[in-house]
Amino acid sequence: MQIQAVIMAGGVGSRFWPLSRQKIPKQFLPIISEKTMIEETVLRLLPLLSPHNIYTVANLEHTQTIRKLLPKLPAENLLVEPQGKNTAPSLILATAKIYLQNPEAVVAALPADHLLKDSSLFLKKLEAAASLASQKFLITFGIPPTYPATGYGYIHFSKANPHQIQGESFYTVKEFKEKPGYEQAKQFLESGNYYWNSGMFLWQARVFAQKLENHAPSIFSYWKRMLDALKNEKDREIKSIFEEIPALSIDYALMEKAREGVLVCPGNFGWSDVGAWSSLMDIWPKDKNGNVIKGDGIVYNARNCLSYSPHKLTALIGVEDIIVVDTGDALLVCHRDQDQKVKDIVDSIKKKGKKEYL
Amino acid sequence: MQIQAVIMAGGVGSRFWPLSRQKIPKQFLPIISEKTMIEETVLRLLPLLSPHNIYTVANLEHTQTIRKLLPKLPAENLLVEPQGKNTAPSLILATAKIYLQNPEAVVAALPADHLLKDSSLFLKKLEAAASLASQKFLITFGIPPTYPATGYGYIHFSKANPHQIQGESFYTVKEFKEKPGYEQAKQFLESGNYYWNSGMFLWQARVFAQKLENHAPSIFSYWKRMLDALKNEKDREIKSIFEEIPALSIDYALMEKAREGVLVCPGNFGWSDVGAWSSLMDIWPKDKNGNVIKGDGIVYNARNCLSYSPHKLTALIGVEDIIVVDTGDALLVCHRDQDQKVKDIVDSIKKKGKKEYL
Repeated sequence: MQIQAVIMAGGVGSRFWPLSRQKIPKQFLPIISEKTMIEETVLRLLPLLSPHNIYTVANLEHTQTIRKLLPKLPAENLLVEPQGKNTAPSLILATAKIYLQNPEAVVAALPADHLLKDSSLFLKKLEAAASLASQKFLITFGIPPTYPATGYGYIHFSKANPHQIQGESFYTVKEFKEKPGYEQAKQFLESGNYYWNSGMFLWQARVFAQKLENHAPSIFSYWKRMLDALKNEKDREIKSIFEEIPALSIDYALMEKAREGVLVCPGNFGWSDVGAWSSLMDIWPKDKNGNVIKGDGIVYNARNCLSYSPHKLTALIGVEDIIVVDTGDALLVCHRDQDQKVKDIVDSIKKKGKKEYL
Repeated sequence: MQIQAVIMAGGVGSRFWPLSRQKIPKQFLPIISEKTMIEETVLRLLPLLSPHNIYTVANLEHTQTIRKLLPKLPAENLLVEPQGKNTAPSLILATAKIYLQNPEAVVAALPADHLLKDSSLFLKKLEAAASLASQKFLITFGIPPTYPATGYGYIHFSKANPHQIQGESFYTVKEFKEKPGYEQAKQFLESGNYYWNSGMFLWQARVFAQKLENHAPSIFSYWKRMLDALKNEKDREIKSIFEEIPALSIDYALMEKAREGVLVCPGNFGWSDVGAWSSLMDIWPKDKNGNVIKGDGIVYNARNCLSYSPHKLTALIGVEDIIVVDTGDALLVCHRDQDQKVKDIVDSIKKKGKKEYL
């Protein structure tokens, strides 16, 4: 069984503005450690996979960055998506590329910008998941929820008759759920039958094609054309097909439609999607008053704040639950409960035409 | 009657950190208008006084700045205080200097860094005050309080038998009060017999000497020595006497001790001591949510905030009552009710030896 990891690195990461920018989205920032998130994502896989079995999918403008950060990956593994669309077009491109080399290969589609604290547990589950994937299942990792999050999609699963393999349990998926409201999220949490959707998936290339053919015929037609264009190295056609594929998530385009044969494995390996600034308050070390201070800071009577201003002296006085992020040219001051609005600010900057701040 | 204004420009203005620094205290910043506060203070006097009748007292390191900002003032009017101490030593020096030229001159001691919105009313009251000062009274301006401020000293006055001159009323001062606690401040406000102490004073040079002799004999001895040293231009001795004078305020060293013959004029000319960042929220224009934004700002769901960051894009999201001040090298994020603590931060920076931020 051959595993081919596809690192999805096309995200724009606008929720980490002003640190993340169009040219440097979150996956290219050293947020969690001194290494960038995409480096961490690849390093984590190396005990299991050779660099030749690791692909990236990203925009052309980031290919150079990826080449510098990940010099051991073969140049031909750095797939370029003609535009940032969503996961379905990117993963059709990547899976087709892999299919042409080996239709039996198992594709592990992994976001470039997530935190996984327990790498060895993750790899153990990944191997088990790959084994099941080569038995024609579509596999996903679900995160046991710890609070009624409204910022994640959910996976409704059945506890009955789990598949056991290599000591790991895989449960049948009943439904993929969009981000819920608070009350519904509470019900999901209390029921015990829901996981957060981690956005990590495994499938055998051949099975991916079959499932598309059976359950998503309109998408399957793009798949066939993409295979053909890749086989004949028709770059312009690849681009044009990519642009035609609807900008859907793979969850919606395939996983949800496949219905049967979709399994979820509980991913209790210390996952975070590091989705916004406040998520770093659970990751970075805090002082005794709950403050996370990155940079030279003076804190007086402040609680549960995050200050990221590596290049200047920052004084916090009498403030609570505030996120402060300073870069050379821009400054964010945000209540920690409202950091999801940061991407709206980026939209607003875009509308105002202030490109230098994007 | 000759009026000689003495602009007290020795303040360090640490409550406006990080904008104000040791090298650029508040009086040398264009906080209220496009002109610096000391320029505003002098400009306001020009309808009444010639530049030759305006003195400044400041530290040596600021003399060059004053000369640049106020080129019309004669160089010999820029008095140098050997060290920043308090108002009594500075005003003994300045009054002695003026006394040697004309003991009948009326000295108007004025802070360099206060806001007076109604200049013409101020000048009208200043002229009336000077007339009374030449009748041997010590005069001060008191600000009718509008809320139970705990950040100001108070002047307890008697409403009985005010002195009327040039249409202005002057009341007998009963007592100078230090900054009160909140409950006492409320009583002061409710009684109607208290004004805020504005720190502006007038006296005839000869009367100043007499009052010191009669009511503050220990200070009077310094006065006599200072007069002598100035007369003989003994610079080293001037410096050494200055250093010996206790670091008292003139309120405490003279006004409070003189007791009788001290009058207060209500200063309803739109005064603010511009004592800290939050005071600017009453001076600078606000948006409909009460936010004051200086610089390029994006505001989302923020209320009653002040953002001063002229050189960068600043986004405020979901925050209330927050003061944000960004300079090139330092950043302040402070609750508006706690801006009096900014000077403690400056002390803390001093203790840590981070001179570059002072």
